[in-house]
Amino acid sequence: MDLIMEQKISKITINEEQQQAFMREAIRLASQNVEMQGGGPFGAVIVREGKIIAAAANHVTTANDPTAHAEINAIREACKKLNTFDLQGCEIYASCEPCPMCLASIYWAHIDKIYYAGTRHDAEMAGFDDSFIYNELAKNMEERTIPIIKLLHDEGVNPLQKWQECVNRMEY
Amino acid sequence: MDLIMEQKISKITINEEQQQAFMREAIRLASQNVEMQGGGPFGAVIVREGKIIAAAANHVTTANDPTAHAEINAIREACKKLNTFDLQGCEIYASCEPCPMCLASIYWAHIDKIYYAGTRHDAEMAGFDDSFIYNELAKNMEERTIPIIKLLHDEGVNPLQKWQECVNRMEY
Repeated sequence: MDLIMEQKISKITINEEQQQAFMREAIRLASQNVEMQGGGPFGAVIVREGKIIAAAANHVTTANDPTAHAEINAIREACKKLNTFDLQGCEIYASCEPCPMCLASIYWAHIDKIYYAGTRHDAEMAGFDDSFIYNELAKNMEERTIPIIKLLHDEGVNPLQKWQECVNRMEY
Repeated sequence: MDLIMEQKISKITINEEQQQAFMREAIRLASQNVEMQGGGPFGAVIVREGKIIAAAANHVTTANDPTAHAEINAIREACKKLNTFDLQGCEIYASCEPCPMCLASIYWAHIDKIYYAGTRHDAEMAGFDDSFIYNELAKNMEERTIPIIKLLHDEGVNPLQKWQECVNRMEY
């Protein structure tokens, strides 16, 4: 077996003990964040080829950024490090089930696999809206809490048409 | 009628012509972004008290950030400007229906109202995964494309318990 073949195999054999170690690091970041008053009680790490390449906690209240959830922060950090917008080949370990914003961001980033410890219901019990927002997204628009109104639809399709006509477009 | 009363009324009377002007600005940003190769064909503006306080386009491919959608960029800009993580009192105008990531971020930011022009189906026709991700989020975990695995649940609830016990916690 040549070296390249061995490396390929090593990529896909993260054993249970390693998985637990990555998750414990995400949980440690979450707990530490409460102690240090860095934001909400959530942590996440991103792993590539058996190594942590990004680790973050929630910084919504300290960064004044409602999108600064642990998973989003970790994705941004990993992309910066790898100089890409595509995290194929990476796994994410989140101390709690990703909220809909973070789950969708994981899809956009093309992450391979998600591990989580706490659930959306645990988060709900601690006062967070994860479960509520999951329910809202599944509703028809007219039944949601935040009103959502269609306006100037005909003009709105123009940029999308322009995109399709653009031969130099960089897809993502 | 005193001045304060007049100001209160002015906040809630954005007429249809103004709404269309805000939406046209979001659409203009989306089209301009295709022309300038800044990223995907999406734009968004955030309006407070009848004025645009943040305006952004999609920068996924140029910023190497899969979360840099127009709405997320606009929310972050608005929060920075207002020095808060809570955009209550604001409305968002998006050139296309927000994807699940952006819609959830709008909930976390507590924005009052959403206007959109293109739909998730228009986006799908132009090659974007918005519609696919909406469907994925609505599925049970075991039916989704990206595997999602629960791990160390008992340990994962610890940070959430710590959060509830923390008397100085800043909720969001």
